[in-house]
Amino acid sequence: MAVQKIDMNSDVGESFGNYKLGLDEEVIPLISSANIACGFHAGDPAVMKRTIAIAKENGVALGAHPGFPDLIGFGRRNMDASLEEIQDYVTYQIGALQAFAASQGMKLQHVKPHGALYNMAVGNVEIWDAVAEAIAALDPSLILFVLAGPGRQDLEAIGAKHGIRIAYEFFGDRAYNPDGSLVSRKIPGSVIHDHRQVAEKVLKMVTEGRVVCADGSEIQLAADTICVHGDNPAALQLVKNIRETLLNAGVEIAPPSDFL
Amino acid sequence: MAVQKIDMNSDVGESFGNYKLGLDEEVIPLISSANIACGFHAGDPAVMKRTIAIAKENGVALGAHPGFPDLIGFGRRNMDASLEEIQDYVTYQIGALQAFAASQGMKLQHVKPHGALYNMAVGNVEIWDAVAEAIAALDPSLILFVLAGPGRQDLEAIGAKHGIRIAYEFFGDRAYNPDGSLVSRKIPGSVIHDHRQVAEKVLKMVTEGRVVCADGSEIQLAADTICVHGDNPAALQLVKNIRETLLNAGVEIAPPSDFL
Amino acid sequence: MAVQKIDMNSDVGESFGNYKLGLDEEVIPLISSANIACGFHAGDPAVMKRTIAIAKENGVALGAHPGFPDLIGFGRRNMDASLEEIQDYVTYQIGALQAFAASQGMKLQHVKPHGALYNMAVGNVEIWDAVAEAIAALDPSLILFVLAGPGRQDLEAIGAKHGIRIAYEFFGDRAYNPDGSLVSRKIPGSVIHDHRQVAEKVLKMVTEGRVVCADGSEIQLAADTICVHGDNPAALQLVKNIRETLLNAGVEIAPPSDFL
Amino acid sequence: MAVQKIDMNSDVGESFGNYKLGLDEEVIPLISSANIACGFHAGDPAVMKRTIAIAKENGVALGAHPGFPDLIGFGRRNMDASLEEIQDYVTYQIGALQAFAASQGMKLQHVKPHGALYNMAVGNVEIWDAVAEAIAALDPSLILFVLAGPGRQDLEAIGAKHGIRIAYEFFGDRAYNPDGSLVSRKIPGSVIHDHRQVAEKVLKMVTEGRVVCADGSEIQLAADTICVHGDNPAALQLVKNIRETLLNAGVEIAPPSDFL
Repeated sequence: MAVQKIDMNSDVGESFGNYKLGLDEEVIPLISSANIACGFHAGDPAVMKRTIAIAKENGVALGAHPGFPDLIGFGRRNMDASLEEIQDYVTYQIGALQAFAASQGMKLQHVKPHGALYNMAVGNVEIWDAVAEAIAALDPSLILFVLAGPGRQDLEAIGAKHGIRIAYEFFGDRAYNPDGSLVSRKIPGSVIHDHRQVAEKVLKMVTEGRVVCADGSEIQLAADTICVHGDNPAALQLVKNIRETLLNAGVEIAPPSDFL
Repeated sequence: MAVQKIDMNSDVGESFGNYKLGLDEEVIPLISSANIACGFHAGDPAVMKRTIAIAKENGVALGAHPGFPDLIGFGRRNMDASLEEIQDYVTYQIGALQAFAASQGMKLQHVKPHGALYNMAVGNVEIWDAVAEAIAALDPSLILFVLAGPGRQDLEAIGAKHGIRIAYEFFGDRAYNPDGSLVSRKIPGSVIHDHRQVAEKVLKMVTEGRVVCADGSEIQLAADTICVHGDNPAALQLVKNIRETLLNAGVEIAPPSDFL
Repeated sequence: MAVQKIDMNSDVGESFGNYKLGLDEEVIPLISSANIACGFHAGDPAVMKRTIAIAKENGVALGAHPGFPDLIGFGRRNMDASLEEIQDYVTYQIGALQAFAASQGMKLQHVKPHGALYNMAVGNVEIWDAVAEAIAALDPSLILFVLAGPGRQDLEAIGAKHGIRIAYEFFGDRAYNPDGSLVSRKIPGSVIHDHRQVAEKVLKMVTEGRVVCADGSEIQLAADTICVHGDNPAALQLVKNIRETLLNAGVEIAPPSDFL
Repeated sequence: MAVQKIDMNSDVGESFGNYKLGLDEEVIPLISSANIACGFHAGDPAVMKRTIAIAKENGVALGAHPGFPDLIGFGRRNMDASLEEIQDYVTYQIGALQAFAASQGMKLQHVKPHGALYNMAVGNVEIWDAVAEAIAALDPSLILFVLAGPGRQDLEAIGAKHGIRIAYEFFGDRAYNPDGSLVSRKIPGSVIHDHRQVAEKVLKMVTEGRVVCADGSEIQLAADTICVHGDNPAALQLVKNIRETLLNAGVEIAPPSDFL
């Protein structure tokens, strides 16, 4: 029987200049894919270089985490940018990160849009299409991370159309609606704080391909990668719990380039 | 007898957002190497993409024109950045431009530091060394543009040390000192405004490898590329004059990747 | 009989660093209120200082023209900023401009939100309220410029609530809907290019308080200030035409602080 | 006998967007003058507003802490800005902070240039003169904080020339040269880490107007304000030690507007 594999990804490299954010050195050894900020919403050239070095040292796959040019808002505010502007921002940021990877003898594995750009894409498949097109033109070996869920067939079609691989992302600490979408953060209970519950939810999704929704119903939902956070010591502990739960169940933690 | 070749380079892609600067569409067809701003001191993702498209259409070689992160000062103010910071800024900006080139099926030919970064490097060979090291780590096929003149042997050594090619740049509209350095812009007469004089100066340097200095003395000075400007219609006319003067003398205008 | 008065306002001070935009020196002498960019979407400290000097020299009233922190998008892209963020951006920018005014012995007369911020406020009266609140806390003598039209009573109430004056703005070169709103720019004919038609439209609004709509119907619409542009020589000519048409009809061009 | 008074100042409001820096809520109650970043090298509109609120609540005097437009370098890198550019940057930043103060019914007490701008001024009295001129034009009631030491007479003359008050600043944790200048940070021992030693040094300067230099010699040095830091818990403890040492010796902690 084949070993089950799952990717664990985390947003890292979010420090900027004199400002330190996140426990990159602690979280990177625990994950298999690093989403590295590229200087628009967070990150700067020195941080990008250092973050790649840490990921390289830990054998963690590298990914670009492009966002809107909104440092003051940390890329979390929707911007009415055109599809072409989004493509240009994505191309620019991936390129900048590719350079630091190349300078250390590495290649990028994936691209995961950040914050508002990711959220806007979840709500508007044209944005996923635009991002996929930009990636395909730049380097079709790059894997695009998207939200697992209801839009899956659309996204498969987009991947096929542009000749790039799609990795579906699961949020273990977020409540799901029965249609496979995330419960809005504005609704109480949308974020799950109980560590054991999160770890179990992740394990169930990985081993059974099923998720218990906020309303108690159970749905099918397959994903390739789990989003985890290294913002603070508690978050870090959760990452360790998820990791151990998966390893104890015989699941292998591996980057999607390994199995997609 | 071999045909003499010389490169003509110009700083382009300096528009930003709603702000238009330079006559790129007019000057690019007249040159052989385009130095494209990369978003730090000028340029933005959309401008970078469009500028590469214009250069591609005209068969003009592409180069990165990295500068200091000083948009308000147009990268013209010295900044006390460390050598490592300079390397990181250069890597970041080259990478961003490489991405737009790759997306259009192109590769960069060269790197020419911009403004204060170029001037600081002229005064401090350690900066040339740092930039060369960054380029070599990223892509050793990239040619580094440096000021032709007294520091030539140092620069040869730097190119050899890092395994990259160096192209020496000549300024036809600037007065030279007998030691091969440029007369400071603070001294009257440092910039030559007479178009015929500039064209003749360029031709003499190209065909004889000699320059008449501000004090009337004549020195040897060999260069691979001539810097020209497309800021306004008059500058554009000068570029045409230089180009015609060279072509009429049987000199071929070609990018340095052709002959270095 | 009292002389009729109307304000003519224009967006100025939109240059940035090495980038020049607009014919400020030509348009400022033709208007009575200058909306000066404050460094977020356009303008920089040196430009703000110079623009105030030009306005002062021409006896033109000074206004802040705050926008979103989106230089690359010229403040023209909607941003999902909170009301509090908008207030903070407005306060910051007005303060910065007030300092340059104070340094030249001047005071600001008004505040006109720029671009996307203005448009979002037109569509969401809570934004007008937030901006009015910020202005009132900072300096209740400042007049807030808003779009004349259907929302007028709401806006009167906002002005009264915060104890500030409201000036209603009319766009002579834009087609109006019968409900007093502007025809969307996406609809053909939304922008009127015929100079005589624009001047007549302005005159009718000023002298009769009536506007002929895109569908031929006529509505009542009173405004205190007319928006004009100094982007290029043709725009400048239109400003002159409007000005002459008004002066010839015995209308006085005066800042709203004169008559509100 | 009159009670001796001394000001304690600290750089605060240095957070930016999602990035938190410094323990403002802890350090502000311990000081008498707050130097608040203004958005160029650190700080943002929301942070400026909040920092003023904290200072107001604690009865701490407000000051602008303007820096170079170098967020990525935290304003710590020398920039070859002209005197006029420096004036414009200072005016802009003071104005932005004044607006947040005015919105809370407050006024600024002082201006202390930040980082590289301060250091460059220490080395070039023309910068102090330019800053003083900008302050005088904007609001001559603002006190300029400068480094106490050898340049004192020059600085007195600058204050008199522009009609503004000068407050001299002392660094308790820095070693001094016999000429009254600070020992360069590049020299070992330039920063004093022993808390008791720092507190004693401060007390001696306050009560005797004398400082023991790095070479053991003793010099006269009078200052009005002591710079302290709230970067981390240890720094905070040092601030408490200095404060208690001064209070125990009968010295009153008060802002310079109280005694200058």
